Amino acid sequence: MIRLYHQPTRDFLTATADTLTLRLQTPPDDSIAAVSAAWVRIDPDNEEQLLPMQRIKGGVAGQLWEVVIPQDPVRPHTAYVFKVAVADDRRWLAADGEHPRLPPAEVAFRWAHVAPPAWVSGQIFYQIFPDRFCNGDPSLDQPDGAYHYLGQRPLRARAWHEQPQQADGPNEFFHGDLPGIVQRLDYLQEQLGITAIYLNPVFHSDSNHKYDTIDYFNVDPRLGGNDALIELRTRTRERGIRLLLDGVLNHTSVEHPWFQRARAGELPYSGYYLDADGDYASWKGHSSLPVLDYSNAEVVAHCYAGDGAVLRHWLRPPYRIDGWRLDVIHMLGEGPGAANNAHHVAAMRQSIKAENAEAYLLGEHFFEATQWLQGDQEDAAMNYYGFMHPLWMFLAGRDLNREPSTLDGREFAVWLREARAKLPFQMARCQLNLLNSHDTPRLLTLLQGNVRRMIMAIRLQMTYLGVPCLYYGDEIGLQGGEDPDCRRPFPWDERDWNQSILHATREAIGWRRALPVLSEGGVTDLEAGPDHWVFARVSRGQAALVGVNRGTTELTLNLSLAGLPIQHGHWVRQGGQQRLAADQARLTLQLPTEATELWVLQ
Amino acid sequence: MIRLYHQPTRDFLTATADTLTLRLQTPPDDSIAAVSAAWVRIDPDNEEQLLPMQRIKGGVAGQLWEVVIPQDPVRPHTAYVFKVAVADDRRWLAADGEHPRLPPAEVAFRWAHVAPPAWVSGQIFYQIFPDRFCNGDPSLDQPDGAYHYLGQRPLRARAWHEQPQQADGPNEFFHGDLPGIVQRLDYLQEQLGITAIYLNPVFHSDSNHKYDTIDYFNVDPRLGGNDALIELRTRTRERGIRLLLDGVLNHTSVEHPWFQRARAGELPYSGYYLDADGDYASWKGHSSLPVLDYSNAEVVAHCYAGDGAVLRHWLRPPYRIDGWRLDVIHMLGEGPGAANNAHHVAAMRQSIKAENAEAYLLGEHFFEATQWLQGDQEDAAMNYYGFMHPLWMFLAGRDLNREPSTLDGREFAVWLREARAKLPFQMARCQLNLLNSHDTPRLLTLLQGNVRRMIMAIRLQMTYLGVPCLYYGDEIGLQGGEDPDCRRPFPWDERDWNQSILHATREAIGWRRALPVLSEGGVTDLEAGPDHWVFARVSRGQAALVGVNRGTTELTLNLSLAGLPIQHGHWVRQGGQQRLAADQARLTLQLPTEATELWVLQ
Repeated sequence: MIRLYHQPTRDFLTATADTLTLRLQTPPDDSIAAVSAAWVRIDPDNEEQLLPMQRIKGGVAGQLWEVVIPQDPVRPHTAYVFKVAVADDRRWLAADGEHPRLPPAEVAFRWAHVAPPAWVSGQIFYQIFPDRFCNGDPSLDQPDGAYHYLGQRPLRARAWHEQPQQADGPNEFFHGDLPGIVQRLDYLQEQLGITAIYLNPVFHSDSNHKYDTIDYFNVDPRLGGNDALIELRTRTRERGIRLLLDGVLNHTSVEHPWFQRARAGELPYSGYYLDADGDYASWKGHSSLPVLDYSNAEVVAHCYAGDGAVLRHWLRPPYRIDGWRLDVIHMLGEGPGAANNAHHVAAMRQSIKAENAEAYLLGEHFFEATQWLQGDQEDAAMNYYGFMHPLWMFLAGRDLNREPSTLDGREFAVWLREARAKLPFQMARCQLNLLNSHDTPRLLTLLQGNVRRMIMAIRLQMTYLGVPCLYYGDEIGLQGGEDPDCRRPFPWDERDWNQSILHATREAIGWRRALPVLSEGGVTDLEAGPDHWVFARVSRGQAALVGVNRGTTELTLNLSLAGLPIQHGHWVRQGGQQRLAADQARLTLQLPTEATELWVLQ
Repeated sequence: MIRLYHQPTRDFLTATADTLTLRLQTPPDDSIAAVSAAWVRIDPDNEEQLLPMQRIKGGVAGQLWEVVIPQDPVRPHTAYVFKVAVADDRRWLAADGEHPRLPPAEVAFRWAHVAPPAWVSGQIFYQIFPDRFCNGDPSLDQPDGAYHYLGQRPLRARAWHEQPQQADGPNEFFHGDLPGIVQRLDYLQEQLGITAIYLNPVFHSDSNHKYDTIDYFNVDPRLGGNDALIELRTRTRERGIRLLLDGVLNHTSVEHPWFQRARAGELPYSGYYLDADGDYASWKGHSSLPVLDYSNAEVVAHCYAGDGAVLRHWLRPPYRIDGWRLDVIHMLGEGPGAANNAHHVAAMRQSIKAENAEAYLLGEHFFEATQWLQGDQEDAAMNYYGFMHPLWMFLAGRDLNREPSTLDGREFAVWLREARAKLPFQMARCQLNLLNSHDTPRLLTLLQGNVRRMIMAIRLQMTYLGVPCLYYGDEIGLQGGEDPDCRRPFPWDERDWNQSILHATREAIGWRRALPVLSEGGVTDLEAGPDHWVFARVSRGQAALVGVNRGTTELTLNLSLAGLPIQHGHWVRQGGQQRLAADQARLTLQLPTEATELWVLQ
């Protein structure tokens, strides 16, 4: 039961340059859980301050309280929790819900003083692995054996209908390119509803994945070169499509001139790379990927700090990309152990925002990213930890290491809540929610082709807090196992498409775009059980309910809605005609088997 | 049910200069929960490493696994969690127990690379407010009206049998002194069993509490001056009693010469204090307590960094104190918001340890202190957050702000677990567990004189993880409400003593001192309910069970002990004759009403 309600949404939090006005809804004064006093707790100099809240006029579903607090003078966010007097007891509210006592520090509500760019939370991202999406200019194709990758493995030219081969991981090419993406913008924007593109690396590199950069300042000519990127940028800007590039600045290719010169003992390059045991340090032991040393001032200048640094260069005309996805950003630093990583990530942020305050900094973190998302470093992370990983376990019984590992509905809800509660709300709202990526097997394959569960996942992705990001082909049921199988060429023959998944994806994207509450609302857990979870999204009087049931039994749920700040109304199931009457307090709804359902208050 | 067992105790963790050998106990191979593989998860460069553990010979109660991991190269501690394969699923173990999934980062097991001094965890501390403990030298007494505190309030001389008066908070004196403490060392050591003394401030100040220092380099002459401290130090060293002083370095008295000169505009003193709104900043608005500015290099030098700095001075001969309790240490810093607090606390640590690597740095934090206890700052904190506060709510229905606030047994257990799980184990083992202090009402008074509950609290304090600290008079049932009533003079007439509490205190101190497992063992939660909680302390085959029942119904509990790394044996109730047979798996025990009971495995 929800007794206390607050979310850092616009109806419950108003920010000025140096204050926050916070509102809290408590049960109606005539209820047994009526609140006689309320406080907000802050600690601006690490010492508790309990500030009394003022009653203001009643809210739609209870008593409203308000208080103005100063923004934290030192931290990059303001943290706060609420305390209330209920009869002869006290209750607390934090970002993870109600507590009988002072909540742990890590789950305090947090409001970042510099939020991610406002445009981010409304996007539908689409991740493209350039070599595999569309071949738009066959003149760029290279013949079999055109060169040897790292001087050893001959280039393998594949036909589009072939499959990636494990034996030829980085050196096989399907010849997708940037002109191909330009050709498919109609598909992405008009047929699917995509609003933003995240491209895997495009800079000069002899591998197909291009995570081993040879030249940070030139798009690989085999993708179309810089001109093709300018063309893609021009066309995407015309359409209002955002464009994010992938920066790989933890390490370079051994073929990068810096490393070649470093190995030749040439100054100043010999100081650019980390040493390890008398040799150079390589990323996770891959000898082709020497690790940059951020204790070297020139590395810092070249990568992010200098006037012409990589991160700055592509934010400028004619490219004007909308932001960066930064690869393994938690690992870069000075010497072993990623020393001073926080400093460098914060400084990268400063450089990026100095070029364009509206640029987006997205970090790649396969696991928990809480520490990079507190307001001074990243705008958001690829949300493996707080979305994909729990989703995989709940729906596919696999953990991120592909091992069998189960999670029931309650544990699923708890994990998602824990992950979002530890972030400033604005970061939680911008987390990039993905189902799979170029680094993982495809979810549909993990689900053994279970289309119902795939649609459950896509609907949850489109209705949950955070920015959805499809990985090319998710929408048409493209399958694939471990890398490189998860990087199959996109099948443009529509007879190869799973129309059920495509229909469901388009429909769910439509919900997302039509209902601002799905982008801007908080999440309130309503109920969870072994196989199901129901949560509400609420903002400014708009409300949606999302129910997830992985079980093979249809569930009839009688939900308590008391405490949600919503008016009496009808709940209308999306994608159907079902209308449910509800008083403010309770709602009965049916949750079909293996389904995610969305109801909207009207 | 405990399926996976690890604690960072000496039998499950062995440290070398740069590695940790970790052991994990899992269920026997013939059980249905048998583990087929185990890994430890570390992230030395912020990236996951899952290292396989090796089976070693079976443990006393299951299968043992072992792995050697490197110590973290950058962080002040090494963090780790365990993952195991159980049939076709995976389970995890963190410092807060088992998880169905990767545990949140904040509850990873943590091993600090520099532990608190080894002597700390075995102590029984006794906190003394010098003006109220014992008047050992009446020649030091001052007559009524001898001076006016802050030029305004006349000194009030009280007779020992009188009570503190609210109206005369800081300016009434009972004339306790350091010679009085020397006279009572027999009582403390031989009658009670105390091993360490923490003194509230003793440096020159015109108040009785002396949190407004006038001279950091001289003990107040009315307490006996420096010679009396030398005498106390000599006598305590002879007896092996440790001595901790209270450093108040966030602010000074307005009568401190630095401030007097600063107000006169005299250089360099005018830069010593924080400004606020065109005037000086004062601690929590108390105009008599101007706040030092740690952005000033001379303040830093005088307080901790310089050769003759305050924190260094008293660690040297002839004083050679054993450590510092530092007042409101979280609040000090540069400018508003305690900016760079972490840097200064870490630097204070460096200065203190440079003088004496065995010195103890205890921070005062009324609320959560997790961030100061990660290995680079404090050795331990006054454990209001992780002990006193939950205990007050569970037993007295009051929170730290003295408001009515309840906590049931399960919530009590969860809070204590959360608090200890977020600390390196060595810090958790040294947290200063108190029942009340000079800053709070006395627990016995909050309990409305309920002696049974007071004894429950003392027994829990002496059997729980962390270092017990009695506040003078706890042991004889001294009562008192808000400051200054909680600072009543110690009644040396034994007819005023509560002999039940004294007996119970001496008995429980005896348990603590006789049973190393109570100082060095981890805590494993066994069961909790509305009114009760049972936990185990285990280390190197020694084991104790502690049961707490605040209810008015005797409980018969059937506990599962499977998974604890202990041999078959008899559990003997301390303070009684009850012997309970148990197989390794289950134990039935009676928990009386309003009682804390201790059973020891023999």
